[in-house]
Amino acid sequence: MARLIEKHSKKAGLPPGTLIHIGEKKVESVRITVIDYDEQNFQEKQVSNIEECFQFKTAPTVTWINIDGIHHVDIIEKLGRQFELHPLILEDILNTGQRPKFEDFNDYIFIVLKILTYDEQKETIQAEQASLVLGPNFVISFQESIGHVFEQIRSRIRNGKGRIRKMPSDYLAYALIDAIVDNYFIILEKLGEKIESLQEQLVTKPTEETLQQIHNLKREMMSLRKSVWPLRELLSGLQRAESSLINESTAIYMQDVYGHTIQIIDTIESFRDMVSGMLDIYLSSISNKMNAVMKVLTMIATLFIPLTFIAGIYGMNFRYMPELERRWAYPAVLLLMVAIAVGMLVYFRKKKWL
Amino acid sequence: MARLIEKHSKKAGLPPGTLIHIGEKKVESVRITVIDYDEQNFQEKQVSNIEECFQFKTAPTVTWINIDGIHHVDIIEKLGRQFELHPLILEDILNTGQRPKFEDFNDYIFIVLKILTYDEQKETIQAEQASLVLGPNFVISFQESIGHVFEQIRSRIRNGKGRIRKMPSDYLAYALIDAIVDNYFIILEKLGEKIESLQEQLVTKPTEETLQQIHNLKREMMSLRKSVWPLRELLSGLQRAESSLINESTAIYMQDVYGHTIQIIDTIESFRDMVSGMLDIYLSSISNKMNAVMKVLTMIATLFIPLTFIAGIYGMNFRYMPELERRWAYPAVLLLMVAIAVGMLVYFRKKKWL
Amino acid sequence: MARLIEKHSKKAGLPPGTLIHIGEKKVESVRITVIDYDEQNFQEKQVSNIEECFQFKTAPTVTWINIDGIHHVDIIEKLGRQFELHPLILEDILNTGQRPKFEDFNDYIFIVLKILTYDEQKETIQAEQASLVLGPNFVISFQESIGHVFEQIRSRIRNGKGRIRKMPSDYLAYALIDAIVDNYFIILEKLGEKIESLQEQLVTKPTEETLQQIHNLKREMMSLRKSVWPLRELLSGLQRAESSLINESTAIYMQDVYGHTIQIIDTIESFRDMVSGMLDIYLSSISNKMNAVMKVLTMIATLFIPLTFIAGIYGMNFRYMPELERRWAYPAVLLLMVAIAVGMLVYFRKKKWL
Amino acid sequence: MARLIEKHSKKAGLPPGTLIHIGEKKVESVRITVIDYDEQNFQEKQVSNIEECFQFKTAPTVTWINIDGIHHVDIIEKLGRQFELHPLILEDILNTGQRPKFEDFNDYIFIVLKILTYDEQKETIQAEQASLVLGPNFVISFQESIGHVFEQIRSRIRNGKGRIRKMPSDYLAYALIDAIVDNYFIILEKLGEKIESLQEQLVTKPTEETLQQIHNLKREMMSLRKSVWPLRELLSGLQRAESSLINESTAIYMQDVYGHTIQIIDTIESFRDMVSGMLDIYLSSISNKMNAVMKVLTMIATLFIPLTFIAGIYGMNFRYMPELERRWAYPAVLLLMVAIAVGMLVYFRKKKWL
Amino acid sequence: MARLIEKHSKKAGLPPGTLIHIGEKKVESVRITVIDYDEQNFQEKQVSNIEECFQFKTAPTVTWINIDGIHHVDIIEKLGRQFELHPLILEDILNTGQRPKFEDFNDYIFIVLKILTYDEQKETIQAEQASLVLGPNFVISFQESIGHVFEQIRSRIRNGKGRIRKMPSDYLAYALIDAIVDNYFIILEKLGEKIESLQEQLVTKPTEETLQQIHNLKREMMSLRKSVWPLRELLSGLQRAESSLINESTAIYMQDVYGHTIQIIDTIESFRDMVSGMLDIYLSSISNKMNAVMKVLTMIATLFIPLTFIAGIYGMNFRYMPELERRWAYPAVLLLMVAIAVGMLVYFRKKKWL
Repeated sequence: MARLIEKHSKKAGLPPGTLIHIGEKKVESVRITVIDYDEQNFQEKQVSNIEECFQFKTAPTVTWINIDGIHHVDIIEKLGRQFELHPLILEDILNTGQRPKFEDFNDYIFIVLKILTYDEQKETIQAEQASLVLGPNFVISFQESIGHVFEQIRSRIRNGKGRIRKMPSDYLAYALIDAIVDNYFIILEKLGEKIESLQEQLVTKPTEETLQQIHNLKREMMSLRKSVWPLRELLSGLQRAESSLINESTAIYMQDVYGHTIQIIDTIESFRDMVSGMLDIYLSSISNKMNAVMKVLTMIATLFIPLTFIAGIYGMNFRYMPELERRWAYPAVLLLMVAIAVGMLVYFRKKKWL
Repeated sequence: MARLIEKHSKKAGLPPGTLIHIGEKKVESVRITVIDYDEQNFQEKQVSNIEECFQFKTAPTVTWINIDGIHHVDIIEKLGRQFELHPLILEDILNTGQRPKFEDFNDYIFIVLKILTYDEQKETIQAEQASLVLGPNFVISFQESIGHVFEQIRSRIRNGKGRIRKMPSDYLAYALIDAIVDNYFIILEKLGEKIESLQEQLVTKPTEETLQQIHNLKREMMSLRKSVWPLRELLSGLQRAESSLINESTAIYMQDVYGHTIQIIDTIESFRDMVSGMLDIYLSSISNKMNAVMKVLTMIATLFIPLTFIAGIYGMNFRYMPELERRWAYPAVLLLMVAIAVGMLVYFRKKKWL
Repeated sequence: MARLIEKHSKKAGLPPGTLIHIGEKKVESVRITVIDYDEQNFQEKQVSNIEECFQFKTAPTVTWINIDGIHHVDIIEKLGRQFELHPLILEDILNTGQRPKFEDFNDYIFIVLKILTYDEQKETIQAEQASLVLGPNFVISFQESIGHVFEQIRSRIRNGKGRIRKMPSDYLAYALIDAIVDNYFIILEKLGEKIESLQEQLVTKPTEETLQQIHNLKREMMSLRKSVWPLRELLSGLQRAESSLINESTAIYMQDVYGHTIQIIDTIESFRDMVSGMLDIYLSSISNKMNAVMKVLTMIATLFIPLTFIAGIYGMNFRYMPELERRWAYPAVLLLMVAIAVGMLVYFRKKKWL
Repeated sequence: MARLIEKHSKKAGLPPGTLIHIGEKKVESVRITVIDYDEQNFQEKQVSNIEECFQFKTAPTVTWINIDGIHHVDIIEKLGRQFELHPLILEDILNTGQRPKFEDFNDYIFIVLKILTYDEQKETIQAEQASLVLGPNFVISFQESIGHVFEQIRSRIRNGKGRIRKMPSDYLAYALIDAIVDNYFIILEKLGEKIESLQEQLVTKPTEETLQQIHNLKREMMSLRKSVWPLRELLSGLQRAESSLINESTAIYMQDVYGHTIQIIDTIESFRDMVSGMLDIYLSSISNKMNAVMKVLTMIATLFIPLTFIAGIYGMNFRYMPELERRWAYPAVLLLMVAIAVGMLVYFRKKKWL
Repeated sequence: MARLIEKHSKKAGLPPGTLIHIGEKKVESVRITVIDYDEQNFQEKQVSNIEECFQFKTAPTVTWINIDGIHHVDIIEKLGRQFELHPLILEDILNTGQRPKFEDFNDYIFIVLKILTYDEQKETIQAEQASLVLGPNFVISFQESIGHVFEQIRSRIRNGKGRIRKMPSDYLAYALIDAIVDNYFIILEKLGEKIESLQEQLVTKPTEETLQQIHNLKREMMSLRKSVWPLRELLSGLQRAESSLINESTAIYMQDVYGHTIQIIDTIESFRDMVSGMLDIYLSSISNKMNAVMKVLTMIATLFIPLTFIAGIYGMNFRYMPELERRWAYPAVLLLMVAIAVGMLVYFRKKKWL
């Protein structure tokens, strides 16, 4: 996280709208794909030159230009000039530290989201920025790497499944947002599993590593929250936006994604509560174990210290200790010791310390 | 909880409006019952074929179609097509992970609620989704299993008790919501009893299991809250909704359920406060007990350690230890020991450690 | 608290407006008193039959009907029918688990409040429900038992003291609310005294019972809060309500009670802060005491363990231990022991452990 | 604090507008001063009889009547009658438990504030109530005692310094409020110094008394907050109030005081954070010290207990213990002991316990 | 922090608008620079006399007057008189304890911000006040010392880089605000690095100093927050302000800075969460270490205390102790001791204490 910020400082002081890529370079070469469709027609191609997309700008069909990899500043710049995007938008696309948000520029709507993937190796959530530009008959999407989140939408368009081919560009934008949000449920599942396994571990054998894992989980939740919370505002904003770009029939679908977002936020909050509950349980179970150990020490020490003292008394070397000479003295002292031990045990049990 | 989410991911990427049942299958076969009534007439039947209900759609009487079991996707689908329900609504009915909410579609209002039951064996609250569709002269309700929450309403309609037979469909919808909310009070009672019994246990003999139970209770409360909180918004929304489907005379009843919801939320919040108070008491009582034990150890150790040292001194085997030869030495040392012990006890008492 | 809820469940499933008394029966017989007055006239009587009150409904004078004891459902019912009260209101009057609220029914305003009394024996706050119905020329008040909160208002009306006889019915309603709210200050005083005495106890000799009392106090505060918080909304609502029943000259008095409520809420919040501060002080004072005890143990043990070891050395029975034979050995060892003890004490003092 | 409330109960049940002084009597005799001025004229006198002020009511000049000491109910009453103040206002002036607030009565505005002074002896903040009545050409101010907060304003009027002589009565009211708020900064400084000295104490030698002082500080902050928070609302209300009594040119000054109030609130919040941070540091430093002590005990005990055991072995009196007869046995055992001790110390160091 | 307030009290009681410098004097002499430009022309000079700037007031070009050092009250005063600034604004410029805010005076807008710099030596964040006055064709900026935050803007204007030379004065104001906000990212980076290094330290070797550093970090965060939080309100206010001074084309840039501010606030909140997480980890790691140490003590003490007791028994000097005479007794006792030790170790391992 500190790394993200470090990069941001590269820009401090430069004029606004200066195009610099801020973020990790996640793919080697940029992949540009264009899908152009209406109810009857369908065309899909991968272009190596951004100029090949420009013809679609004025076509009556819906055009989806997807760009995987945003480190080639000049591609973004050319595209921006052709589609007349505001320099600040291009800057935001290139700067991967954006917060999810949307901005309405009358001619087009700009949306920033986070695509989350769960890195099984590192056991962390990876966030990647996705930017969408929704125009009257086109959608341009930008991803940091070649992801699979949009794959099913591509195949739905190809096969004409669902209503996507019959609907205008705003429905495509909705479908992309929906795909990203649906993907969050998979992340939640992973976290849910991790919580469950940690809960079991907590009952059976809590170790110091368990604590570390609980704290990691907490941090993951925190970063997840950061990606999801602003979505709420974003989606309710999109619905309320009086933009001619969003049709009423699509607004109802936006409402649906909004519902999912609320559900995800609810689940995250529950998870947070559970994790902090786990922390409490961990801490009290550790201190319980400690207490049990201490109690045993106390019992044994309290039992033997007086006995040892008595043994010490009769280990003294005074010449005139009349008891030492008696035949019955040794067994008597042993008996006394047993009596004291038994007495203390009874006392402990009465006090409910045993 | 993690399970719910796991299922949701089955849908990730599918087009919106795809009908898939998400949730546990809670009953074997689907039960469909139809009740049709107005002030004079009453008709009740259980149908095996969903098509039998379709005739009631245009009837001037109030029709209540209740469907127990939602895993037969095609029943829901047929019903939806006949009553012209939006595909997203059908999707929500089938997906049991919904949050309580209402949506106004002009021709009908869609409401999602949670029916809660207390599982005595597992000592947990079971949540089941109930969906209502309120149309101009019909109410369709969906439950996951054959529940008894609506039984009393059925008998009130049958017997013409109360004003239900004289009122339009929105009053029926209100009655169903009221039945579900009234049922929450029973859950609250169970929790209240559990809290009381735990409080007693806390005073008499707190064990580690008590802690576990407090944490369980906390979790139950959390899940209860998740079902009830959104109700507040839902009901105040229903009142404010400028829908022609909700008459003014019913709105006052909605206000009444709203009042109950606020009362339930208040009680849950009190319970939460009490449970976290119990946690504090538990923790401090455990540490108090521990401290009492430790204090005894300290007393005994502090008392005997110096005495044992003295005994150790006179256990040394030096040849020239003049005291050892004196007749009065042994009793003198014993007296010294007693003096030291008494002195320490007096000191302890003065310091208020005893 | 759990008891209240238990009773509520008796009603689950019954049609709304069903009149059942929910709550403890606090008086044996119901007492009905009627006070009828205007600037010149005054009439007060206790009636045994509710019908005797009905004549006052249309009288131009202000009529105050006070009913102590609400377990006789039919009295409430008859009164309701005569004064045309909505069944849901009658239900609320009978159900003592209401939250303070007001409802405006155009022809009359319905207000629910809590009368609090401090039970000196049990050291708890007892809450009792008071319901007010304010009509154009009457006020009907319901109490669970024969309370003394309204006594001074009665005498003010009798003696024509203050402006009450010159004012319409809304001023009477205000006077009743004011009496109830003023009474809260007495409760606050009791709590204030308890906090003060606990604070003293905390400084002089905190026991485990102190902790219990702090927790009780916390709970009392919680229940007090539950009665007072909704009042804020209630009173600001009454002021803003565009009801013809509340005259402008009375609104300014409502504003005054509102001010008192804010003051009470502020005081409760301060008390809460103080009580949680006390909890912190208690816990740290307990742990400080424990630490002091432990320190003494540590000192004594640390001091004597090495000395005892030395004594142990010279208590060994090896044949060839040359030191044992020397005359100076015994005093030398004693001196060594003293030196070690002094050394350790100096070390402790340097480390500021003493 | 409990005392304040105790007094309030004296009034419970009395009709509203009954004039009773609630609060401590802080001065012996009431001092009434009148200052009357416009740009050219200036007149100042101390009157012994409240009637002497009445002539100024209709004068075109600005009149400031200041009353120090509010326990003479009849003075307040006469003044109120003459200036046509609402009885509830007179009641509020006399009842010193008011919360800062303002009320707009069209003909005049009523403002309640708290003057704070720091009692160096008791190390507590003393709050005193100041009430202002702002009329078209007069300001009446009430204080509980003869304070010095307004002294500089008097001299500014006398000397015609600043713009005060040129401005109408609302500017005078502003000046009084500003003086009171500016005075809060002095209190903040005192608290700031106390925090600084406590922080130093915390680092050098935290004692149990430090804890007590931190808690006191916390309580002071709490009471300070209670006086300042409502000011925010009060001042933003005064600005927004559409009263003809407050001119636009004065509103900008009110905005300025508002800014100061926000600054004061910010500082209080920072202080609160710092104090609770100090509490954390105190507690962990105490427990660190304890831990250091315990560690030494553990080290010494762990070191010597095994050695003492070995000494115990060879202190046994068995007849057949062959080692005892060997010449090398004693030095060998001593060597063994040293070896064990060194081994343990190495182990401890490796485990980083030393 | 306490220092800041101390200074403020110098002003208590003075008439508003009295010009006194409140704050540290950070530079020796005041530096005044004037930059005057439009698309074609550019002029930059450092003036020693504030009167030299006055000619630019009415020039059609954009003029930026920058004043480094605000302790020369008369410079500010002359400038204020010439540019017709309200006395309260001049007061705010001189008083460095302001909270970030903006005020719209129709003819000009007044903005207060904080420039933050990270002091590497003291490891603290230094805040310096920057005030901006935006007029129709001029911007006047005030800084406490000669800072480098605005350097890049100067060079952009000089070189005609970006769109700054083509835009009116509000864009210049925006550029200054943007520079200040961008600078916050550098502070965040420093904190991020510090957090990372502390996190590492926490895992490898947490010391008491680590705790101190965590608390320092917390305090830094608190002060950072105090500077940044009000910015949010400030910037959204500037956008909404219906001032003719801010053009629509600039408003979109303001929106952009607003976005950065939200991002910074988010990051601060994450940092706060992380720091409090670190505190938890620190405390539990310290207590874990302590527990590990205590456990060893317990083990060793529990193991040896009974054995020492047995040795004590056979160290007693009774004449008639038959065992002492047997040949096999000594080895038998040694074996018994080994058996007890092994038994206890097995028991400990079974109880999972080892």
